[in-house]
Amino acid sequence: MSENNIPYKIYLEESEMPRNWYNVRGDMKNKPAPLLNPATLKPMTAKELGAVFCDELVQQELDNDNCYIPIPEEIRDFYKMYRPSPLVRAYCLEKKLGTPAKIYYKFEGNNTSGSHKLNSAIAQAYYAKKQGLKGVTTETGAGQWGTALSMACSYFDLDCKVYMVKVSYEQKPFRREVMRTYGASVTPSPSESTEVGRRILEKHPGTTGSLGCAISEAVEAATSTEGYRYVLGSVLNQVLLHQSVIGMETKAALDKYNIKPDMIIGCAGGGSNLGGLISPFMGEKLRGEADYQIIAVEPASCPSLTRGKYAYDFCDTGMVCPLAKMYTLGSNFIPSANHAGGLRYHGMSSTLSQLYADGLMEARSVEQTAVFDAATQFARVEGILPAPESAHAIRVAIDEAVKCKETGEDKTIVFGLTGTGYFDMVAYQKYNDGEMSDYIPTDAELEASFATLPKV
Amino acid sequence: MSENNIPYKIYLEESEMPRNWYNVRGDMKNKPAPLLNPATLKPMTAKELGAVFCDELVQQELDNDNCYIPIPEEIRDFYKMYRPSPLVRAYCLEKKLGTPAKIYYKFEGNNTSGSHKLNSAIAQAYYAKKQGLKGVTTETGAGQWGTALSMACSYFDLDCKVYMVKVSYEQKPFRREVMRTYGASVTPSPSESTEVGRRILEKHPGTTGSLGCAISEAVEAATSTEGYRYVLGSVLNQVLLHQSVIGMETKAALDKYNIKPDMIIGCAGGGSNLGGLISPFMGEKLRGEADYQIIAVEPASCPSLTRGKYAYDFCDTGMVCPLAKMYTLGSNFIPSANHAGGLRYHGMSSTLSQLYADGLMEARSVEQTAVFDAATQFARVEGILPAPESAHAIRVAIDEAVKCKETGEDKTIVFGLTGTGYFDMVAYQKYNDGEMSDYIPTDAELEASFATLPKV
Repeated sequence: MSENNIPYKIYLEESEMPRNWYNVRGDMKNKPAPLLNPATLKPMTAKELGAVFCDELVQQELDNDNCYIPIPEEIRDFYKMYRPSPLVRAYCLEKKLGTPAKIYYKFEGNNTSGSHKLNSAIAQAYYAKKQGLKGVTTETGAGQWGTALSMACSYFDLDCKVYMVKVSYEQKPFRREVMRTYGASVTPSPSESTEVGRRILEKHPGTTGSLGCAISEAVEAATSTEGYRYVLGSVLNQVLLHQSVIGMETKAALDKYNIKPDMIIGCAGGGSNLGGLISPFMGEKLRGEADYQIIAVEPASCPSLTRGKYAYDFCDTGMVCPLAKMYTLGSNFIPSANHAGGLRYHGMSSTLSQLYADGLMEARSVEQTAVFDAATQFARVEGILPAPESAHAIRVAIDEAVKCKETGEDKTIVFGLTGTGYFDMVAYQKYNDGEMSDYIPTDAELEASFATLPKV
Repeated sequence: MSENNIPYKIYLEESEMPRNWYNVRGDMKNKPAPLLNPATLKPMTAKELGAVFCDELVQQELDNDNCYIPIPEEIRDFYKMYRPSPLVRAYCLEKKLGTPAKIYYKFEGNNTSGSHKLNSAIAQAYYAKKQGLKGVTTETGAGQWGTALSMACSYFDLDCKVYMVKVSYEQKPFRREVMRTYGASVTPSPSESTEVGRRILEKHPGTTGSLGCAISEAVEAATSTEGYRYVLGSVLNQVLLHQSVIGMETKAALDKYNIKPDMIIGCAGGGSNLGGLISPFMGEKLRGEADYQIIAVEPASCPSLTRGKYAYDFCDTGMVCPLAKMYTLGSNFIPSANHAGGLRYHGMSSTLSQLYADGLMEARSVEQTAVFDAATQFARVEGILPAPESAHAIRVAIDEAVKCKETGEDKTIVFGLTGTGYFDMVAYQKYNDGEMSDYIPTDAELEASFATLPKV
């Protein structure tokens, strides 16, 4: 079936794997706005950030100039255990759709964490180890990031403390056990182990927790314990930098077969996958070397790019973290509980926000029933059961391929398949049983949430 | 870290993928004993088998002569979506163990079914489609085989009826939902939908089912419905034939780098993975071209090779299927409920049984706590969370690598990593909580079970 000798799956050789991360900020004319200290409203200094994050990661966070950052050999060795990830030609999906479009997807789910999160987890664990730290703390909601970090920490023999939103801790015991198997300690949040946790429990004895609360606990645990730092799985510049390995590999694989994509599509929650996938393509665009249509796909239930405000906001609902300038729905915005996938974050990476504000990429929002339609359609012909997050990108890729069928264009579409849906079967069950519903916040709801934006 | 230019993961090119399955029976001097009709005790004819199985699969089942069977292009196209699977050099495990041994594993878990089962599922679905059938029926216990078959049937647009042991249906809703997502109908067994199911429910109203009962229901559903056949995921000669793709790829990958293994290790339940992995190596051994130490690893709780009898026995506990000559614990043998992994089958592939009887391979049994020790040790350095079944092979691979450390030998060890453990977290939790126990059947228990062997 392979045409023009393009295989179903393009794997780079080990020798072709990227030796550098690409820092898109180096090529941006309008740099992403700096993080602000919430007390002083002045840009966070390296010293201030160093109390929370590892020193080298702080440097990466603040580096708006260097385009290429060498990937340390120890990280490249770990990457070799599960990377390069395949760039797959979706021949079977194309055939099923009867489209002249050529569809490729970069599949990041073939590792035990089940997603691309491992690319940054291993980097952050490495720098923590290099700094001589004992361990790191983090929060996790659904558990993908916590799993990735647990794996990375066990590899470098670092202690890993995960604060897991209590409702997930109870409803997703399997995720919890994967983390424990990798040696992490997993604490349901809010907990008695931190001051902020105790305060919240006193005020709301029956609470099942929130991501914002878990972040606050993880940050407190890191900053109050000798030899620990806090790590985060998305949103930050450093995370997008590490995730650029996705895009670098994708570009190298396409170049190997002289394939030039017309559009690149990725789902967007905090932006780690999308930012990584598009980075080298965006670089070419910024340097005027090539043009691509770049599309961020977000849930209609949590539409930060398509309906949010571009403003400084808190990164956490607890409002203890620095302020970031980003497209945001307001840090008090909580997506409807009926939303099944991830991508529930109220804001968006500052880097992507700036690129979007500058008109360098588009955004679309999709409803979840349509997303699961696409997920099921994809699974049945391409074999892989996608994570609901990833299926947002599948939805738009299918829509675009169907448009090509109508117009007769043979566009080349590349999308990011960030992970697998093994731990999302409750949502699939709802869909299979015809009990999934859609939810779009009203303008009034968003206005109420915008009203809580800090005055900066 | 890669030495001698051997990468962490050896991927074959698409053009290097096997175009034939290898049928080890063609090279065996002592052929496996034929299936017998339980009523007449005479070898099952093609016609008799054709009432239950697809015609071409019957031919493959009975073919003891042809060494190479071409893989149809449609199956090769499907294989290209998730194969070749990587042959991984376990550099990190070697380093952790401090062993001079070189350890490789063939990883079959990188597809949504999570295991090697898909290799035969797609072949069986293809032949059913080719025969113009409407659909197939099968049973599933833990759900790996049912998932693989659901994926294969959705690809070929075949109806798929899965009888799932009731206790698993209720305790493993996620597995069930994966199958439903691929369009399969999943019925808890025993059910009201078959005569045998109704009979069992009448006799044992509260029963949670068994694999033997689910097999009986699936066979009845196939033989009583126009346009349906029954399919099975292990034990049969045809299944080992399809699984030879594992061994063919492994050998091609090793040959590519001039690597000659000293020993090949695989877990063994019904024998599908082990039989597939070792097939081309066993072929060389049978033809006197090379020698390898080949080790089957089974659970101490279900030790068919190490403590079973080599005799004709029923393949199912319902005693409706043909008799097979194999190492068996008796079709009434039920492994202790505390056994966490798969590999719970009372018998063993006839082909492997004959090879074992002829002294061409060894067998070892291991206890489950030791298996989970190995699984956890492996996961923490190699990243992949193994299925408990696969971890049986890891246990012996580690034991052999540690022996090499003691003796200073730099043996090359290859083992089969058949799948991932995402759906086995209840067992991992028991292990993490220190609540896992071991169980070895007593001689008296085995003798009692042997007493029920049919007189042939």
